[in-house]
Amino acid sequence: MNKIPVAILGATGAVGQRFVQLLDGHPWFEVAALTGSDRTVGQKYGDGCRWILPEAMPAYARDMVVVPTEPGFDGRLAFSALPTDNAKTAEPLLAAAGYAVCSNASAYRMTADVPLIIPEVNPDHTGLIPRQQAERGWPGFILTNPNCTSTGLTIAFKALQAAFGLRRGVVVSLQALSGAGYPGVPSLDIIDNVVPYIPGEEEKVELEPRKMLGTLRAGAIELAGLRLSAHTNRVAVTDGHLVCASVEFDAPADPADVVRVLTEFQAPALVQTLPSAPPVVIEVRPEADRPQPRKDRLTGGGMTTVVGRVRPDPLFHIKFIVLSHNTVHGAAGGALLNGELLVAQGYVK
Amino acid sequence: MNKIPVAILGATGAVGQRFVQLLDGHPWFEVAALTGSDRTVGQKYGDGCRWILPEAMPAYARDMVVVPTEPGFDGRLAFSALPTDNAKTAEPLLAAAGYAVCSNASAYRMTADVPLIIPEVNPDHTGLIPRQQAERGWPGFILTNPNCTSTGLTIAFKALQAAFGLRRGVVVSLQALSGAGYPGVPSLDIIDNVVPYIPGEEEKVELEPRKMLGTLRAGAIELAGLRLSAHTNRVAVTDGHLVCASVEFDAPADPADVVRVLTEFQAPALVQTLPSAPPVVIEVRPEADRPQPRKDRLTGGGMTTVVGRVRPDPLFHIKFIVLSHNTVHGAAGGALLNGELLVAQGYVK
Amino acid sequence: MNKIPVAILGATGAVGQRFVQLLDGHPWFEVAALTGSDRTVGQKYGDGCRWILPEAMPAYARDMVVVPTEPGFDGRLAFSALPTDNAKTAEPLLAAAGYAVCSNASAYRMTADVPLIIPEVNPDHTGLIPRQQAERGWPGFILTNPNCTSTGLTIAFKALQAAFGLRRGVVVSLQALSGAGYPGVPSLDIIDNVVPYIPGEEEKVELEPRKMLGTLRAGAIELAGLRLSAHTNRVAVTDGHLVCASVEFDAPADPADVVRVLTEFQAPALVQTLPSAPPVVIEVRPEADRPQPRKDRLTGGGMTTVVGRVRPDPLFHIKFIVLSHNTVHGAAGGALLNGELLVAQGYVK
Amino acid sequence: MNKIPVAILGATGAVGQRFVQLLDGHPWFEVAALTGSDRTVGQKYGDGCRWILPEAMPAYARDMVVVPTEPGFDGRLAFSALPTDNAKTAEPLLAAAGYAVCSNASAYRMTADVPLIIPEVNPDHTGLIPRQQAERGWPGFILTNPNCTSTGLTIAFKALQAAFGLRRGVVVSLQALSGAGYPGVPSLDIIDNVVPYIPGEEEKVELEPRKMLGTLRAGAIELAGLRLSAHTNRVAVTDGHLVCASVEFDAPADPADVVRVLTEFQAPALVQTLPSAPPVVIEVRPEADRPQPRKDRLTGGGMTTVVGRVRPDPLFHIKFIVLSHNTVHGAAGGALLNGELLVAQGYVK
Repeated sequence: MNKIPVAILGATGAVGQRFVQLLDGHPWFEVAALTGSDRTVGQKYGDGCRWILPEAMPAYARDMVVVPTEPGFDGRLAFSALPTDNAKTAEPLLAAAGYAVCSNASAYRMTADVPLIIPEVNPDHTGLIPRQQAERGWPGFILTNPNCTSTGLTIAFKALQAAFGLRRGVVVSLQALSGAGYPGVPSLDIIDNVVPYIPGEEEKVELEPRKMLGTLRAGAIELAGLRLSAHTNRVAVTDGHLVCASVEFDAPADPADVVRVLTEFQAPALVQTLPSAPPVVIEVRPEADRPQPRKDRLTGGGMTTVVGRVRPDPLFHIKFIVLSHNTVHGAAGGALLNGELLVAQGYVK
Repeated sequence: MNKIPVAILGATGAVGQRFVQLLDGHPWFEVAALTGSDRTVGQKYGDGCRWILPEAMPAYARDMVVVPTEPGFDGRLAFSALPTDNAKTAEPLLAAAGYAVCSNASAYRMTADVPLIIPEVNPDHTGLIPRQQAERGWPGFILTNPNCTSTGLTIAFKALQAAFGLRRGVVVSLQALSGAGYPGVPSLDIIDNVVPYIPGEEEKVELEPRKMLGTLRAGAIELAGLRLSAHTNRVAVTDGHLVCASVEFDAPADPADVVRVLTEFQAPALVQTLPSAPPVVIEVRPEADRPQPRKDRLTGGGMTTVVGRVRPDPLFHIKFIVLSHNTVHGAAGGALLNGELLVAQGYVK
Repeated sequence: MNKIPVAILGATGAVGQRFVQLLDGHPWFEVAALTGSDRTVGQKYGDGCRWILPEAMPAYARDMVVVPTEPGFDGRLAFSALPTDNAKTAEPLLAAAGYAVCSNASAYRMTADVPLIIPEVNPDHTGLIPRQQAERGWPGFILTNPNCTSTGLTIAFKALQAAFGLRRGVVVSLQALSGAGYPGVPSLDIIDNVVPYIPGEEEKVELEPRKMLGTLRAGAIELAGLRLSAHTNRVAVTDGHLVCASVEFDAPADPADVVRVLTEFQAPALVQTLPSAPPVVIEVRPEADRPQPRKDRLTGGGMTTVVGRVRPDPLFHIKFIVLSHNTVHGAAGGALLNGELLVAQGYVK
Repeated sequence: MNKIPVAILGATGAVGQRFVQLLDGHPWFEVAALTGSDRTVGQKYGDGCRWILPEAMPAYARDMVVVPTEPGFDGRLAFSALPTDNAKTAEPLLAAAGYAVCSNASAYRMTADVPLIIPEVNPDHTGLIPRQQAERGWPGFILTNPNCTSTGLTIAFKALQAAFGLRRGVVVSLQALSGAGYPGVPSLDIIDNVVPYIPGEEEKVELEPRKMLGTLRAGAIELAGLRLSAHTNRVAVTDGHLVCASVEFDAPADPADVVRVLTEFQAPALVQTLPSAPPVVIEVRPEADRPQPRKDRLTGGGMTTVVGRVRPDPLFHIKFIVLSHNTVHGAAGGALLNGELLVAQGYVK
């Protein structure tokens, strides 16, 4: 088939670069536009972008001229790596102009008529799109993926919710530096240190999973009943968010059953056919000390959620840890998978 | 007064070195013996010890000849930095030979007739000593201080227990490398990484606070009813254990009241007179992102417990974080304070 | 005596904060003014400054109101922690207005009539001040201290130059993050990494020592003949610059003699009386693997230069390593010592 | 063709594991034996080996039973990752028993009749093998690859020697932790620190390049005249050794010519055909701040030498930096390439 032309919004930032890299050689999509800020508009991407990924900048991007983030660029589908403030103003204008916007920004995640999607978890929530278009009179639309810390956690929760019912949980994150973008965290703040606070993060982690685990009924999402308490911390790790979770089910469960349920969890059939879908959705490590960020973050190319240390919890039912690659599945890779889902479901043609 | 001669058991290891340093110029104690393993016995301490602290080795220790860890060395009070296995066999022999052993080892912490003490928390638990001596026929005795992660947590819990009643808590640690001793954690395991497992640690953190917060009644400790669930992690920090805690009280409490209670918490009057007692037991930081290990671990010379981020918890009542210096108050400093308590209470003369 | 009122220019930055800390309780100086940028002018220092040092902000500074960096502030002596560009314009205006400016900025270090001073090395170079004042018609003047990497190196070189003559050297630095200020180096650039380039640094390290080791003759400095080649690198260390040096003397020298010469090196008598003078100018470590930044940077309160690994060089004569605390002696502490020198020599009254 | 059966000696250590990984799916070789220490002999590799690489343990190795490092195991070619002491005794016994030993150990690198080889540099030095076999009466032989720090340096030097003549150089390394094996450097020694000493390393770096750049004449190697002075340092980097070099040629050279010569450098034709030969031998980065270990170590799969910052040297002629992956080309990958060379040259059939 002819490839679908796509745009990357905010292409010069940390997440934008990851989009540029992941879209290199994509079987369905072809990058037709890279947008940037006033500083970079008009420059070649290779000149205007301070590339920070270890992988080399893809050849296709180097000579593309950066364009403004406003209607008119090529591409029907726009992957947004915009900062929240920019996203807030730019994304509605683009949806109104007919673009399908797959956004990694937090600006509209909790908006009632905007889908918040992890394809392995709630692909049916795209059912909000017609309502969004009808109510707002937009030919295009906005669809979002969750916060990087919510991603792996929600995937594990989905498997557990289906099997055991999920009531409550305390979740404590040890998050990677790339989650703060670039330049992000100053090195003097993190060498031989932990920063036990990430602005706005705990609120997102306590709320976003409930929307994704919720139910689409009569054109609206009923939040899942699950109640969460989150502590979020920044540690001296480049990539890979680790989360410690203690959870309460509807009834006690055996750790071995929990391991089995997580291991056997599969994405819906349609999602399994998407090019960026992880080969294995959840991998459960049997070792006492895994997963670890540096050793396990690239499992499944950064798209597999890795769980470990499944054991009884003295207060609730089960304790475990979850690792997810924050700039792959937790950001650009998640948005990309959402874009593929839109094609498979016919929302983007 | 004449100084009391003391010994340091296992003086060449990481905790042993901290004892050597903290006892330099101590107003009550004078180091009369340094014990070591077969490898170092007979050597001068300055030759046999690979000193790893940033502070210089105190002059008094350099020419002392390392002696075996067996009855016969000088000193009535013995500070034990022995590894658990050695402590298990050596400490009872020493107590039987008349030494008062203040041990940092975990071997006997949960033994029914052995006090587990933080002077700011439960100095009355030394009341177990006479029972221990009577039952075992020992002229000396063993007294222990808790695990480094339990230390700061239990001090904060003590204040909260007294004011609000304490029912349940989930606690997740981000622990420093020095807690694993030297050589301890290989650098290849921790650069750009987290190790989400510390053998035996979660069990200690879930149990030790309950003994210290318990009640001495009829010569035995009734464990506090508090139930804890712990996750323990190793992070790339040299010193300073940080713990995230979500706790449930007997009834809801206002964060401002919690801050006040923690800030006003004081050690019993006798404990306040001890030379190593922290000037302030608990300091509550008002900033959104403090305490942090590198910036706050030396508060009160490493003897003050630093709390921060006191806020409502969506599941329980209150969330907060606690920082404590793991090799000062959490190890050698804690044992030293215990030794001072023994003198003040008359158990050591 | 009455304390001399002093100002700190650029007091909210990383080096400015170190001045604020080092001047707390200073026996000769009293801080009378703190200057800042437009963003902070008019705010209390405690509110406008994002304090990054591990030591607490001194009480004296908290309620002082930040004033603009322009003539009119209190204090005869001004310690400048201004960025280079600001220093370039502001410092001459202040000197013209009568202030004695002790600058840590690089803007005027190599200017012919501006002294570049390390008191232990070339206190007589203040002899340039009268020429500077006469030629420019300034009642005040500018005096500078060297780049942080040049500092320790030049102190060691001074001792060697006097004893053996110094012809050539290759110097390679492993520099700390605090040398880049705050926020400075992004953490994503330095975790599990080295940045082998620091803009403008190699040129400074190759040139500044030659001015300080040069000779004041007829109102001008003749550069020392010494020729240097520098490589400068940034490593994941918070404080403490380490430099590897291979040097050629006028004639071969025995390593033992080099150690002796370095150890016995003393500052001129007047300099030894200054409050901030290091108790020992150079300490030579005998261990095979010292000095190390984390273990040795606080030697002499960060004012002592620590040398180690003195050994024969296969190409030149001697190899060794030098460690110096880059924000203490290498920046604020060095400028402060210069201010004290000005008082002792009568240039500031 | 049928694959050649090979053995990995010391297969459970850090370098041994890298051999196991690099030989997975090798087009010419098939792993027929894994040897280990007494502790692991008789166990399955998957059980006895504490795997530390980020890549998963290859399936082929998991169920292989570890055998002793003594004659009798399968495989004609043995890749040795033995510690130096073991290598010293075991390797001659194996050569005497007919094995071709490609050793990464330092034990015999400077032995007169043992080739020290980097195929891109001196493949003709295998000409020492017949002499070694004749003199010692061995049906097998020992061949070695250089120290990890010497590897990248010698490749760059080879290109420069051929074009400009190479007289002298000062080289200063910033070496990765994996170079010290596992557990290797304790984390407490390297967080927020540099260790400016690596036992025996400077001697190797000063001598090994001279043997490889030397000339095989009449059955012996004449060392190259090049004289080197080395400083070696350990930094907080997992993989990738960076070296700063200042070198003197026979005559001055323009940096642009140096860049051209390095870029155009090619391995001998036969070497280019080897399966593990780097696609590009030397890549020269044009950026001011590259190469950097984390960003550039995997260039060419870790087999390409990356050079940067080529610029004039004030003392000698040219300064530059070199990055080489220490456990790939600098250890297992280098030995593997040597094994392939032996096949291509007919020494192993």
